[in-house]
Amino acid sequence: MIHPRLATMLAFLVTDAAVTPARLQRLVADAARRTFNRISVDGDTSTNDTLLVLANGAAGPVAEGAFAEALEETMGELARAIAADGEGARKLVSIEVKGAAREADADRVARAIANSPLVKTAIAGGDPNWGRILSAAGASGVAVNPGRVQITLNSVVVCRRGLAAPFDEAALNADLKAASQVQIRVRLGAGPGRVRFYCCDLTEDYIRINASYRT
Amino acid sequence: MIHPRLATMLAFLVTDAAVTPARLQRLVADAARRTFNRISVDGDTSTNDTLLVLANGAAGPVAEGAFAEALEETMGELARAIAADGEGARKLVSIEVKGAAREADADRVARAIANSPLVKTAIAGGDPNWGRILSAAGASGVAVNPGRVQITLNSVVVCRRGLAAPFDEAALNADLKAASQVQIRVRLGAGPGRVRFYCCDLTEDYIRINASYRT
Repeated sequence: MIHPRLATMLAFLVTDAAVTPARLQRLVADAARRTFNRISVDGDTSTNDTLLVLANGAAGPVAEGAFAEALEETMGELARAIAADGEGARKLVSIEVKGAAREADADRVARAIANSPLVKTAIAGGDPNWGRILSAAGASGVAVNPGRVQITLNSVVVCRRGLAAPFDEAALNADLKAASQVQIRVRLGAGPGRVRFYCCDLTEDYIRINASYRT
Repeated sequence: MIHPRLATMLAFLVTDAAVTPARLQRLVADAARRTFNRISVDGDTSTNDTLLVLANGAAGPVAEGAFAEALEETMGELARAIAADGEGARKLVSIEVKGAAREADADRVARAIANSPLVKTAIAGGDPNWGRILSAAGASGVAVNPGRVQITLNSVVVCRRGLAAPFDEAALNADLKAASQVQIRVRLGAGPGRVRFYCCDLTEDYIRINASYRT
């Protein structure tokens, strides 16, 4: 090991809460599903991920609810930092999908949007191109009824019932160009399933970086 | 319809062979599966595709084998032209996956490689980065035994049994940089399943084009 190339993601959390290994494992797995497993830079799966949480117990017992919340908040912050730090990224993109028939469907739709190069280049250009978002949702494999879909970009409704909603395109374009964070909200109108997913925009620097370094 | 924006792919073939609608439908569907449905530019599904084949019968009956072959050859040529003409593409990439347990597995592995931004940026840079190819295959969802995988880039074996094979990296790098066509061959060593898939490299021009035009 003189040339280890350790990668891809190494995450370490420490706590002085007294929490048993079994309980901690359950809480960490649950929070990881909603944090580290709901980010993407380019859809390519990283090969060497590690998440370690160490608890020394010094602080004594803690309320499970508060502990679980703090754990997920910390893990979420670290996960978002990874997405924001993607190769060439200039914008952190939050994708909230609501109204799916089940959580797994919402996850699939969010993932499809997050991994769509057309959506991500549109975000890079500040283009409120909701058609690409709707198209990615429709191609996700989940049964989506476009007539029920509403899409919001940074609080501006751009698509209602699958059709263009009236909005000030020049203003939103300027807003998206200037923003370092972009929120995509998609409502499917099919049920209670919801997720929040994070990705980043796709810029020319992504290509520059990845075409020239050897992983 | 004064602003139709017709797209995305409209393919028309005509033939004077006498072939019944039912037979033609079967032959076209079969060939489409192996041609138009085995190309990708960026993994984003196009929304408005049409493939029409018209037969007027003037030439009378034809041998089904020869007709099917000519049909698939023509459709394959058109499909490859689409991949080669992807936004910003400089290289047509052919991905041949052999030795999968079944054809569907080979298709899934080929698709994962074809849609990997890391693989496609490496190709753009002429980088014989077989690790990214192996990683994409491994993350495809198909059970892949890396110890059996062989990867060839433009006739040069770069990975054997999942490990680096000795090759002249500078020479292959120069060759890949100069080539307008790149062949990726992956052998999985698990069975008879095989497919051929086409995609293109991912360049900065892809971003430039898609960040600035409205679909």
